[in-house]
Amino acid sequence: MATHKLVNTTWHNVLGTVPPALTIASGDVVITETLDARGFDKNGARPAHGPNPMNGPVFVTGAEPGDALRVDILRMDPIRPTGWTISSLAANVVDPEAARGLPARDTVTWRIDLESRTVMLQEPPSELQSFVLPVEPMIGCFGVAPSLGQAFSTATSAENGGNMDYRGFRPGATVWFPVSVDGALFFAGDCHAAQGDGEIVGTGIETCFEIELRLTVEKNRRLVWPRGENENHIFSVGNARPLDQALQHATTDMLNWLTSDYGLSAEAASHLMGQVVRYHVGNVFDPAYTMVCLIEKRWLPKPASVG
Amino acid sequence: MATHKLVNTTWHNVLGTVPPALTIASGDVVITETLDARGFDKNGARPAHGPNPMNGPVFVTGAEPGDALRVDILRMDPIRPTGWTISSLAANVVDPEAARGLPARDTVTWRIDLESRTVMLQEPPSELQSFVLPVEPMIGCFGVAPSLGQAFSTATSAENGGNMDYRGFRPGATVWFPVSVDGALFFAGDCHAAQGDGEIVGTGIETCFEIELRLTVEKNRRLVWPRGENENHIFSVGNARPLDQALQHATTDMLNWLTSDYGLSAEAASHLMGQVVRYHVGNVFDPAYTMVCLIEKRWLPKPASVG
Amino acid sequence: MATHKLVNTTWHNVLGTVPPALTIASGDVVITETLDARGFDKNGARPAHGPNPMNGPVFVTGAEPGDALRVDILRMDPIRPTGWTISSLAANVVDPEAARGLPARDTVTWRIDLESRTVMLQEPPSELQSFVLPVEPMIGCFGVAPSLGQAFSTATSAENGGNMDYRGFRPGATVWFPVSVDGALFFAGDCHAAQGDGEIVGTGIETCFEIELRLTVEKNRRLVWPRGENENHIFSVGNARPLDQALQHATTDMLNWLTSDYGLSAEAASHLMGQVVRYHVGNVFDPAYTMVCLIEKRWLPKPASVG
Amino acid sequence: MATHKLVNTTWHNVLGTVPPALTIASGDVVITETLDARGFDKNGARPAHGPNPMNGPVFVTGAEPGDALRVDILRMDPIRPTGWTISSLAANVVDPEAARGLPARDTVTWRIDLESRTVMLQEPPSELQSFVLPVEPMIGCFGVAPSLGQAFSTATSAENGGNMDYRGFRPGATVWFPVSVDGALFFAGDCHAAQGDGEIVGTGIETCFEIELRLTVEKNRRLVWPRGENENHIFSVGNARPLDQALQHATTDMLNWLTSDYGLSAEAASHLMGQVVRYHVGNVFDPAYTMVCLIEKRWLPKPASVG
Repeated sequence: MATHKLVNTTWHNVLGTVPPALTIASGDVVITETLDARGFDKNGARPAHGPNPMNGPVFVTGAEPGDALRVDILRMDPIRPTGWTISSLAANVVDPEAARGLPARDTVTWRIDLESRTVMLQEPPSELQSFVLPVEPMIGCFGVAPSLGQAFSTATSAENGGNMDYRGFRPGATVWFPVSVDGALFFAGDCHAAQGDGEIVGTGIETCFEIELRLTVEKNRRLVWPRGENENHIFSVGNARPLDQALQHATTDMLNWLTSDYGLSAEAASHLMGQVVRYHVGNVFDPAYTMVCLIEKRWLPKPASVG
Repeated sequence: MATHKLVNTTWHNVLGTVPPALTIASGDVVITETLDARGFDKNGARPAHGPNPMNGPVFVTGAEPGDALRVDILRMDPIRPTGWTISSLAANVVDPEAARGLPARDTVTWRIDLESRTVMLQEPPSELQSFVLPVEPMIGCFGVAPSLGQAFSTATSAENGGNMDYRGFRPGATVWFPVSVDGALFFAGDCHAAQGDGEIVGTGIETCFEIELRLTVEKNRRLVWPRGENENHIFSVGNARPLDQALQHATTDMLNWLTSDYGLSAEAASHLMGQVVRYHVGNVFDPAYTMVCLIEKRWLPKPASVG
Repeated sequence: MATHKLVNTTWHNVLGTVPPALTIASGDVVITETLDARGFDKNGARPAHGPNPMNGPVFVTGAEPGDALRVDILRMDPIRPTGWTISSLAANVVDPEAARGLPARDTVTWRIDLESRTVMLQEPPSELQSFVLPVEPMIGCFGVAPSLGQAFSTATSAENGGNMDYRGFRPGATVWFPVSVDGALFFAGDCHAAQGDGEIVGTGIETCFEIELRLTVEKNRRLVWPRGENENHIFSVGNARPLDQALQHATTDMLNWLTSDYGLSAEAASHLMGQVVRYHVGNVFDPAYTMVCLIEKRWLPKPASVG
Repeated sequence: MATHKLVNTTWHNVLGTVPPALTIASGDVVITETLDARGFDKNGARPAHGPNPMNGPVFVTGAEPGDALRVDILRMDPIRPTGWTISSLAANVVDPEAARGLPARDTVTWRIDLESRTVMLQEPPSELQSFVLPVEPMIGCFGVAPSLGQAFSTATSAENGGNMDYRGFRPGATVWFPVSVDGALFFAGDCHAAQGDGEIVGTGIETCFEIELRLTVEKNRRLVWPRGENENHIFSVGNARPLDQALQHATTDMLNWLTSDYGLSAEAASHLMGQVVRYHVGNVFDPAYTMVCLIEKRWLPKPASVG
């Protein structure tokens, strides 16, 4: 299981079937430095442009349509002492008439202390002088090439992943994407130093990271939507608008997961989900919203079969 | 500050302007035994019918339109050794075509151990033999009379509260409702022994509780939506369909709260909310869905003034 | 079949169970003068206030829960030479970020020529000097008392009708409402001299009318939603947010209508609806939106039975 | 202005940047025979597969990003004596719980009389023995390549057009698409012999047509969404879910059109739209729904400038 350094010279604003930047074996580790959402690198140069330029794609040998690509997020280190956000709530997250009174959508700089892993506004207003956040790294946009020759903007997300902007895509988490093309063609970028639920200003704290990921092919998983796992939970991810539909996708996928892999009848799965399910809001800003359906592992029966 | 026992002889299926069952002073405590969602009591008698028959209303002296009614949930003790749920996910929480394959919506009984405060299916399927949940009490439906002579079914919710089915309405939480009529006219009932996010089978574990609440008038708070507080968070509540609109209501209300009570500019509030906000899904089953917008107290500036 | 003059001295801002202003027999005709949406009468006096003060309710002898109240809109004559609208599109009908740039929501006066039945802005901007509309009268808000002691604001609508703001509620149309209380308790008001689809500025041309309606009880029709008929179409009406859900209600009701009254199997109804259905947008401004599902009568099989 | 015959040997299931099948000059006419939605041709052979295989793309010389591609639908002749539909309403157009009771989604054959231009079920149930529809041809899916290297499935639609399934795309109509790539890259297919609003069974009457279109470049139109015109109306088209957002897109685009091309202030445009706008539902089945916002030409001021 080799470790590869992925260094892009061009970047991608779609997740689609484009020539791979790197080919690896299943189980290999990839280390790469991501650009920020507008294409600036850790030195302030701008080798690419927005939305969300992607590193990759990585061709993983042996991946075929119907398989899953398992992505273990091993490490995320911030590599630039500044990040940026937008200075106003997005108009679509407030009551429509309230949108008239929102502040301007300006770009604001944050100072990131790479040692202490904290982040604060570079020029905080007086009310926020003591507003210092821990760096909580997450991947805003990652996924694989979609089916049928489709290619989706990195501004949005779909069955193949993409710009989901979910806090839970952080070191320690594992994510599975449904493979639709040979080699899977994995992309990643748009990492955030912090972000609230919903990405309701339209950004997290946008900056550059060195990320380390293990990519593994799991044969014939027949996934429809991204799924994930962390220390305590398994989770399924739905991407769509409105939020209601994202929730329907995630809930349906969890139901299918519990019945196919954990041996539950649909009625037993209903009992379980009804009383212990949790929902997390990924983003409510992008063209497709993201809703995550989680079950704590302690409630799960032993899997009947996985993979 | 007296303690009152509220004993209803008739129950209400609307939150509206009806004659009070009890009149108390601001700051008094009310203890009452609630019926389950279909009107059965702790002995299995059925003095009322669904949806969600309410105890009350309680007239709180001094409450006037424009005030807030503060409700401290002091205690909730389960008083019946059985509860019930529905045996299938609701059709509206799964992908529409998936609804065709859902199990039947039957009523299923759960056994509640009142000593150990645990709950399990009375006749669990083999996969769920070891599925034992802690009792985590919550109030499904409570609130005050709405404005303008309106009266809303206890199946739904609105600015005045109602059937929000949010897990966070539990002992230790405080909730404020916007008062629209003299005396506030407070109602409560429909308590659950447990419930997942979203109430996605259409019920929590429906049973009877003895609940103890303190009701306090806070003058001239000018609330629009319910707000709350627990050990770690403040939160605002939006009730509407689709979930997107519920989220807009809750987010707008949090923005207004931070700017009016915590001295933040709209831009500062955007910075704070954008990076630390959390969302909880109340219910996604009732005619109006419920979305809760939370901020951890550790991020809040010292309040400039609280009503 | 008598004709009654309905003259209110108080008006209602809810559709609910309140004392009747008039009692009539089934089949009788009611003539009444409506106030405008803010409670002004034809002389500019303001005996009531908004939202949408209602004349009525009319108790129709013999109407019981489960029946339908048939309302034939016989005549609508404008009786005030002025109307008003709001000067901007509503924020919720444009893209959220576009809401920031909308004009102010001021009240603007229109001149109504009661003879020629035309209407134009009192002080038209230069671009609209020749913008003269025919008066096309419609009832914005009407319906019956809802079930279970509920009372709904006249700002919104539900199964019982209410503020649907649909252009198709005009002279020549017939509407059926599901009766939930003895006597039906029929309300009407909020008439418009003209209105585009969707009521997208939040008003039609708001003015006063003399309206003439025949109210007839049809026994045991078991309606869920309002239904209607005009010269060429039958139609069902769904009221909810989002618009998708309003469409689901109207479509489901049309399916039920065709299968129960016209002898079609669900498959045959699918064939018919799939190829000939039409949708009209009522309002997309009020808390509940209104979608209308229409079938041209020429496509209908002879009714097997009509209630 | 030449006339070209477009004959594909391969077909496309995405609208994207793929090699052109034909290159023409602006103003030229293209004649082509379309396959049905599953890839069957007029002889029952199946040279392609679904969803909605597209003829094209056509490269129109001189078209550049920022231009509009004007498409005049000159003629549509049905060329196969059979079509097909699905035998049940789609689950997403009825109330969720009602989806459980819908008929199976089978494929059903219709007989198309190419002479009389009528269409009826091949094996009609007894209730629909006399259900004979006129052929009303429409293009279900057409549009141009999207921006940024994106490629969208022909199952859905977006700013670049696609699977809008709107009855109004019929002979006599003109449509403008926003050009995002050199040559525009125009695609078309998925024609219907008839279809109700909303395409609520998930299909129109799917068959093969010979279509004749004129494609003309209009420089620097800076469109965002498709726009159109017919004998009586101009219209703008929004594609998104939920239907509310599709309506917001179409309404915003009409507002922009009236203010930029017809010299109306935003307030004057609000007055005009508020009282005369009409909405048509395109489809409510595909991943993106389609809403059309129309204004009758008689209400329009003389354009200040077009193009």
